[in-house]
Amino acid sequence: MIVRTAVLERLAELAKLGAYERGIDRTLFSPAEHAARRKFADWARASGFALEQDRVGNVFARRDGAPTGRAPIVVGSHLDTVRTGGAYDGAYGVVGALCALERLGAEGATTRHPVEAVAWAGEEGSRFPLGCLGSGAYAGLNTLEAIEAIVGDDGISFPTARDGPSGLLPGVPVRDGFPRPAACLELHIEQGPSLERAGARLGVVSAIAGQVRSEIDVVGEAGHAGTVPLIVRHDAFAAAAEIALALETLARQLGECVVTVGYLVVEPNQTNIIPGRVVFRVDARSVDDTRVERLEAGLRDECSRMEIQRGVTCGIKLLERRAAVPMDGGLRAALHTALESLDNKLMPVPSGAGHDTMCVATVAPAAMIFVPSAGGRSHVGDEYTTPEDLELGVEALVRAIVAVDRLLAEKA
Amino acid sequence: MIVRTAVLERLAELAKLGAYERGIDRTLFSPAEHAARRKFADWARASGFALEQDRVGNVFARRDGAPTGRAPIVVGSHLDTVRTGGAYDGAYGVVGALCALERLGAEGATTRHPVEAVAWAGEEGSRFPLGCLGSGAYAGLNTLEAIEAIVGDDGISFPTARDGPSGLLPGVPVRDGFPRPAACLELHIEQGPSLERAGARLGVVSAIAGQVRSEIDVVGEAGHAGTVPLIVRHDAFAAAAEIALALETLARQLGECVVTVGYLVVEPNQTNIIPGRVVFRVDARSVDDTRVERLEAGLRDECSRMEIQRGVTCGIKLLERRAAVPMDGGLRAALHTALESLDNKLMPVPSGAGHDTMCVATVAPAAMIFVPSAGGRSHVGDEYTTPEDLELGVEALVRAIVAVDRLLAEKA
Repeated sequence: MIVRTAVLERLAELAKLGAYERGIDRTLFSPAEHAARRKFADWARASGFALEQDRVGNVFARRDGAPTGRAPIVVGSHLDTVRTGGAYDGAYGVVGALCALERLGAEGATTRHPVEAVAWAGEEGSRFPLGCLGSGAYAGLNTLEAIEAIVGDDGISFPTARDGPSGLLPGVPVRDGFPRPAACLELHIEQGPSLERAGARLGVVSAIAGQVRSEIDVVGEAGHAGTVPLIVRHDAFAAAAEIALALETLARQLGECVVTVGYLVVEPNQTNIIPGRVVFRVDARSVDDTRVERLEAGLRDECSRMEIQRGVTCGIKLLERRAAVPMDGGLRAALHTALESLDNKLMPVPSGAGHDTMCVATVAPAAMIFVPSAGGRSHVGDEYTTPEDLELGVEALVRAIVAVDRLLAEKA
Repeated sequence: MIVRTAVLERLAELAKLGAYERGIDRTLFSPAEHAARRKFADWARASGFALEQDRVGNVFARRDGAPTGRAPIVVGSHLDTVRTGGAYDGAYGVVGALCALERLGAEGATTRHPVEAVAWAGEEGSRFPLGCLGSGAYAGLNTLEAIEAIVGDDGISFPTARDGPSGLLPGVPVRDGFPRPAACLELHIEQGPSLERAGARLGVVSAIAGQVRSEIDVVGEAGHAGTVPLIVRHDAFAAAAEIALALETLARQLGECVVTVGYLVVEPNQTNIIPGRVVFRVDARSVDDTRVERLEAGLRDECSRMEIQRGVTCGIKLLERRAAVPMDGGLRAALHTALESLDNKLMPVPSGAGHDTMCVATVAPAAMIFVPSAGGRSHVGDEYTTPEDLELGVEALVRAIVAVDRLLAEKA
């Protein structure tokens, strides 16, 4: 039997924060995101958990375990969203972690490790141009100094936003530095169609896909749309379109990888002017790093081809490179054992999306649990997971915490 | 021998108005465009010409001819620019017309028709979504009521802008209605490479290309760039890119036509989200209307193909349709005769760009003179024509006015 928790009500409350006609817009240190962090802190405080935050905006709600002096198991996700986000991506994992801690309390469980429910700051990179900002700092992948030098897409610097009215939470102690955890767990919606298609309700993540993001600056020659014959044009948009379609074809040939042009801006973007410049971004991912490398090589080849065939120049700037991150084998095995009675179709599943856990996985054993996403939709206003699956995921997380707590204590 | 006029100095003065790092931005009823019209009026007044304006913002400087009661020959172009315009497109034809009238005065010429130098309002359609706004109203192609219902891209209505501080010129009498002229002439830079490539310095326009502008609204399905396999995507950008490239291929096969995607906007335009919607515009032109029709049919076919192959929907909205406009045969012949001694490579040349004269050609015989554009460049900040060619063009316009005045009087 699945014990009902506060997960549905809390997700419904969070879904109001930043909501507009196209979804939820809750970027790091915006008023809506601040309100979401405050709700998390209020709920945690009401449940008697000790609160802390750090200097990048991560918030931790701690449930103590046996007095062993062990490092905590951190369990959480993020409260920020993309500009047109949904109600579950991230928020589910934060609320789910808090509900799991409350369940442990209700059951009177004593863990060998403290367990911290955490809201990682700025996972989406949708205001400050750095994904997994909070978890990356926590894992030491970026220094505090480097993060404090970042400027948001609104021109406001990270420290100004953090120290402003929508920044750190008032009244919550601020940690110095970033301690190393004993392990990391994250509960998340799949954001893809695999579980739904297989009829599974729970997945244990096998690996998080590696990713390369590049920005391509195509410079051609602007000109009058009526007077310049096609053969003498240097149309930056036509070149960008060819590159994008060639990469899509290559990715289909390679298989087990995806490539996306989600961002593209035309200059001067007037109906009657041949595009003189196009800036676009390519996002290539696979759990197999060699496939991502082949997509990168394909991008370089296509850019060279366009330079020759269309007389444009293509500057390629690497925005982000991330190798695939396999989840910890021991934790995965423990989760499969702990969860198989909850879903007879429990399956291993790769994650095409990046997650905070891939950062923390560089300093501690880590694992993730997925629940299905209706239609595989995410990063859109209508992402959806059934209430039954949301509750089942929290139950799975409770069992995962207990299993991992035991596994680590036995290993120690 | 070419008589030196004030054309260069005046173009240099106008080029300061609306100038910024990427060119000149002088949209109708902006402060910069108002200043340009005021300069035109000041120069005309100083030369003793009678000024009038009409209710759409066209400004007329009149040099009387013999008291025959004949309708005027209107000679001019426009002072507004695209958002990243150059110093010659339009402004040259307005200043050139004024200099030509002054030359007629200096020579003591008595024409059989009054001659009006005119600055047509809002040719570019770069603020209010209607090209050739002023000349179209003058020719009765759009009613004053229809134009007064237009709203600019800044949300300001046409009447509000026109009656505001950057609208009609203070102290200049306002005409009621739109009288019919005896003929229309326009001096313009070619904006394409034909004259320069042929080594010609003057061209007599054969016809103005017909044009169809369409807006395509591609609706696909947004989704997470990492988690949705390529085979289940409905990527609106990939569909738009395919349509654009297919149209380019078709136009190359057809020949003697051009097609351009100059405007394209991606939604939500984030690196890590599959584009859920793309709105783009297709501009197809040819002096042969059947080629434009074939491009339109091609657009419909490609949209249907994308609906089937990518599961997107493509709404096609017609923004503008304009048949090709041949210039008046009698006037063209008279211009060739009048101008052949000025340039031994004088040639007929089609106009890929639309011009005010194509509107006025619907109510009166009309002709145009082109001078070369360096590199065929126009609608960009660095469009350029040599001072020698600019002066030659004014000389050609003087001779064209005299020739047309005589031709019409002889025909009458």
